Amino acid sequence: MLHILFLFALVLAPASHAADFCVAKLKGAGGVSGYACRDPAMVTAADFVFKGIVSSGNTTNIINAAVTPVFVQQFPALNGLGLSTARLDLAPGGVIPLHTHPAANEILVVTSGVIKAGFITSSSNKVYIATVKKGEVMVFPQGLLHFQINGGGVPASAVVTFNSPEPGLQILDFALFANDFPTELVTGTTFLDSAVVKKLKGVLGGTN
Amino acid sequence: MLHILFLFALVLAPASHAADFCVAKLKGAGGVSGYACRDPAMVTAADFVFKGIVSSGNTTNIINAAVTPVFVQQFPALNGLGLSTARLDLAPGGVIPLHTHPAANEILVVTSGVIKAGFITSSSNKVYIATVKKGEVMVFPQGLLHFQINGGGVPASAVVTFNSPEPGLQILDFALFANDFPTELVTGTTFLDSAVVKKLKGVLGGTN
Amino acid sequence: MLHILFLFALVLAPASHAADFCVAKLKGAGGVSGYACRDPAMVTAADFVFKGIVSSGNTTNIINAAVTPVFVQQFPALNGLGLSTARLDLAPGGVIPLHTHPAANEILVVTSGVIKAGFITSSSNKVYIATVKKGEVMVFPQGLLHFQINGGGVPASAVVTFNSPEPGLQILDFALFANDFPTELVTGTTFLDSAVVKKLKGVLGGTN
Amino acid sequence: MLHILFLFALVLAPASHAADFCVAKLKGAGGVSGYACRDPAMVTAADFVFKGIVSSGNTTNIINAAVTPVFVQQFPALNGLGLSTARLDLAPGGVIPLHTHPAANEILVVTSGVIKAGFITSSSNKVYIATVKKGEVMVFPQGLLHFQINGGGVPASAVVTFNSPEPGLQILDFALFANDFPTELVTGTTFLDSAVVKKLKGVLGGTN
Amino acid sequence: MLHILFLFALVLAPASHAADFCVAKLKGAGGVSGYACRDPAMVTAADFVFKGIVSSGNTTNIINAAVTPVFVQQFPALNGLGLSTARLDLAPGGVIPLHTHPAANEILVVTSGVIKAGFITSSSNKVYIATVKKGEVMVFPQGLLHFQINGGGVPASAVVTFNSPEPGLQILDFALFANDFPTELVTGTTFLDSAVVKKLKGVLGGTN
Amino acid sequence: MLHILFLFALVLAPASHAADFCVAKLKGAGGVSGYACRDPAMVTAADFVFKGIVSSGNTTNIINAAVTPVFVQQFPALNGLGLSTARLDLAPGGVIPLHTHPAANEILVVTSGVIKAGFITSSSNKVYIATVKKGEVMVFPQGLLHFQINGGGVPASAVVTFNSPEPGLQILDFALFANDFPTELVTGTTFLDSAVVKKLKGVLGGTN
Repeated sequence: MLHILFLFALVLAPASHAADFCVAKLKGAGGVSGYACRDPAMVTAADFVFKGIVSSGNTTNIINAAVTPVFVQQFPALNGLGLSTARLDLAPGGVIPLHTHPAANEILVVTSGVIKAGFITSSSNKVYIATVKKGEVMVFPQGLLHFQINGGGVPASAVVTFNSPEPGLQILDFALFANDFPTELVTGTTFLDSAVVKKLKGVLGGTN
Repeated sequence: MLHILFLFALVLAPASHAADFCVAKLKGAGGVSGYACRDPAMVTAADFVFKGIVSSGNTTNIINAAVTPVFVQQFPALNGLGLSTARLDLAPGGVIPLHTHPAANEILVVTSGVIKAGFITSSSNKVYIATVKKGEVMVFPQGLLHFQINGGGVPASAVVTFNSPEPGLQILDFALFANDFPTELVTGTTFLDSAVVKKLKGVLGGTN
Repeated sequence: MLHILFLFALVLAPASHAADFCVAKLKGAGGVSGYACRDPAMVTAADFVFKGIVSSGNTTNIINAAVTPVFVQQFPALNGLGLSTARLDLAPGGVIPLHTHPAANEILVVTSGVIKAGFITSSSNKVYIATVKKGEVMVFPQGLLHFQINGGGVPASAVVTFNSPEPGLQILDFALFANDFPTELVTGTTFLDSAVVKKLKGVLGGTN
Repeated sequence: MLHILFLFALVLAPASHAADFCVAKLKGAGGVSGYACRDPAMVTAADFVFKGIVSSGNTTNIINAAVTPVFVQQFPALNGLGLSTARLDLAPGGVIPLHTHPAANEILVVTSGVIKAGFITSSSNKVYIATVKKGEVMVFPQGLLHFQINGGGVPASAVVTFNSPEPGLQILDFALFANDFPTELVTGTTFLDSAVVKKLKGVLGGTN
Repeated sequence: MLHILFLFALVLAPASHAADFCVAKLKGAGGVSGYACRDPAMVTAADFVFKGIVSSGNTTNIINAAVTPVFVQQFPALNGLGLSTARLDLAPGGVIPLHTHPAANEILVVTSGVIKAGFITSSSNKVYIATVKKGEVMVFPQGLLHFQINGGGVPASAVVTFNSPEPGLQILDFALFANDFPTELVTGTTFLDSAVVKKLKGVLGGTN
Repeated sequence: MLHILFLFALVLAPASHAADFCVAKLKGAGGVSGYACRDPAMVTAADFVFKGIVSSGNTTNIINAAVTPVFVQQFPALNGLGLSTARLDLAPGGVIPLHTHPAANEILVVTSGVIKAGFITSSSNKVYIATVKKGEVMVFPQGLLHFQINGGGVPASAVVTFNSPEPGLQILDFALFANDFPTELVTGTTFLDSAVVKKLKGVLGGTN
């Protein structure tokens, strides 16, 4: 036995970096491709499990919907694995407003109810809209504006997965109206008029 | 209006290749990074939806389980999107035997029941095992041996997602015993003896 | 001499694929990572030069601006080189409306005049706005909404370069209003009301 | 001369990160894509040379073989270069048992003797076996189970190279039997029976 | 409103790593894929603008030309964006000598004057030479020897962009003659004779 | 048995593209990331073995050396595997002249004799030179000028491996002198004078 154990000793040498996984040290400085790895000797099976999307997100809000992200910041085991996920909950009438993921493609599986979803291409502004029922799957290409709305009279939910641990999430209305983006620049770079912009800034907490 | 339409005319020129998506022409010859694209003008919203994992896979088999892959061969819209998925169904006592995905990391979300799952690292042969309940998430790093078994007394199911449209699936027992891999090479390259190998070849339809 | 010529004969063997470059056959079927290569023996120095952005684009339109893309569809030598470019022209008062590039980062160099530009982050909806003068450089991260407007009283122009031969260009107003995206879905997935949507559909040639 | 030296001064400015190479600081924290770089000013020619596989590995063991890895942990200059190597030594009767490299393809060149080698595909469980003589080359795709055995009556050796500085090495028998993987889970996720598992755990130092 | 703000709270949680950008901490240790990120909360719009190539480089030197790089070391916002740029200035008679960029493809836009440029392929030693006028574009594939010279009687300038924040710049004559590369090795590995080498070492400040 | 075979039927469905490997159809049109795949059903074990570098290359030439490439054009199984190799043979006094590989890093293992090798950095023109004996390993970063010469009085050979199936090979003297690169441009873009250039063009078969 000693012979075998000796044989592969070099491979088994302790190292602060493990090829198999790289659970993120979120407190340390991140870099271009993610976070530094936690010492693999300190990592346990529990680090590979995330329990935060067992229950429905709170949909008692003006969009009657909730997005609960499971990105590397929430689930450090995703660091370097090229994957992340999120839970969508849509009460009747619920809407995930138009948004993009700047850094990832998305695959959605409906886990309850019915969801109507769509995306708009960049090359031709064509709109692809589909109704997706429980157990059905839909994909949304990277960086394109897309939406999901409740497509039935009952609560709906879905699991979405991204091919990046940090897909990003840019919600159109938040980007336009929930910040200090000057009204004259919003109107100047959209075809919206000033009254519309100011009203929505009011609703979404924006200024300027 | 004509002014605007003219302005972006170059961008909108018809092209057989669209940056936004590249739904696979499965009949044509594949290449290193996937399949050729179907003419985007022929692609409809229905191409982005997959309906084949709505129902449970058939678990009336000796492993009491089913894996239903949704790779690019089943869902051509995945071509080039860096994602694929699969449905796991585990009847009580069901087992997805030890296997690897040579080309992708995996993220699993339990959609019903309880699943006990684990993987083994290459760097230290350490086994990470966890019990994952409905709504919980677990990850499995690329290329490592892993398994999923029913962890409760009731049927369980899960959605798994991969960061490749062709993650591959190498089931250990099939690789060893369900083919014409010569018995003397199987015994010579494992620590299994000939009787064990021949018996399992018998069970799994292997020869030699 | 024959000895040397013989020595490297294998390297110099004719091949339909050349590692050095892969000028696109645009007529053939594209694939996930671009187009098939033209026969390198037929490629000449002229194929590596693009002359289409020597003159200002026509800015006599409602945005007083022009974007002239030099993507792989316009300049086939870019195939596989991970780069593309475009010329921006902004008459006084000119605006490149809010848009994203789903598949590339962008670097801008002002070649005449003054440009005011900005982008909005996905992580915090923060708006970064800067005034960029002739010879100055600005960057815009992938997939984020951004804009450029004339920042002086005289015509301005810029060269922008992307780290993809097909960066994509999704212009927000065109995505929302210049297509058949149903008004009730536009209103439902933004905070815009129906009258605003219908008016802009009218301006931009949209229907539904 | 001063003119020229001045001309390129910006490029030559001292930097802690050099585009040309990034010799690993193994003691520091690793990250997703490897280790931090050592100060390039401290790097010497000797850092780019590895002398540890000049002699045959010790094959006096139960597999009559030795694998000596030259991964980034052994040869820090490999950090970021997308390459690593290893030496295989096979005494007569020697066997490198079935194993995978989760993170890299492999190319093997026989440097003495004869090696019989094979791999098993994931898509069809097909076994590809070849006899490879001195000077011949064979490839093994990423993540697939493969083996090498002495194919002659004399010692054999080979150089193998991987397209990753950390290819990983998962030896099937070690993954199954040389750890605390519970016997009932090993039997449950393979078709092996308990007696076989317990016997091999005994041989390979496993528990549970 | 509180409902909405709460809804996306997880996404907006402060993090030291931002998916949108990763402005380099140049003082810290670099790694394989670039530098660590500065705290995004400390980053301002000014960090995304570079003003250092507004004016012509100093061409009063023996090549009558100047290259002013804008790589990540000069413009930290480029970290992780896969892009960098440089300004070329060529007085009448000016020459950017033969050089390569080991890590990037290059796209050049002439901003004044006329430039004659060319590159040599590796596969067939074929030379592609073109004259590029103001506003025209030319590309140079990664790692190939290429040059730019003033192609008219008046000053010329260009903006070049690379698909890497650290493209590298290896100037042939500097690599051969401006260092301590032993004369006998230079002659032995080129077809140049000793007198030529020693003379150029003298001109370029080389030794040995 | 039928149950199991049925279970994985979808995975095993015939496909013209196999995730496991993609042996090149060299006759077809190549693309950005390599060649189209041959029908995997027609691929045999022999396709994964290359026998062309068993014997020494012919070193009876003016450099007393031979490079025998094993790139994808010679060994189609390398397509998509991110690896290629080559054999170097150096008779006493033999030299592999200064060259670069535009598209790959290189790792060298000496298989007989002694080799003196070196490379020059782009960032500082620093020369790293080492003497590498039988069994020792050396690395050469992508795109940097490097050389190998016989470092002993006996024949030497080496196996070099690249992290690309098409690393490219640009031999400096061939790029400068073995083609129709006009003499006045060679002199203008190097510091060599016309007589030196014309003499070497004569030796290497160049014109102009």
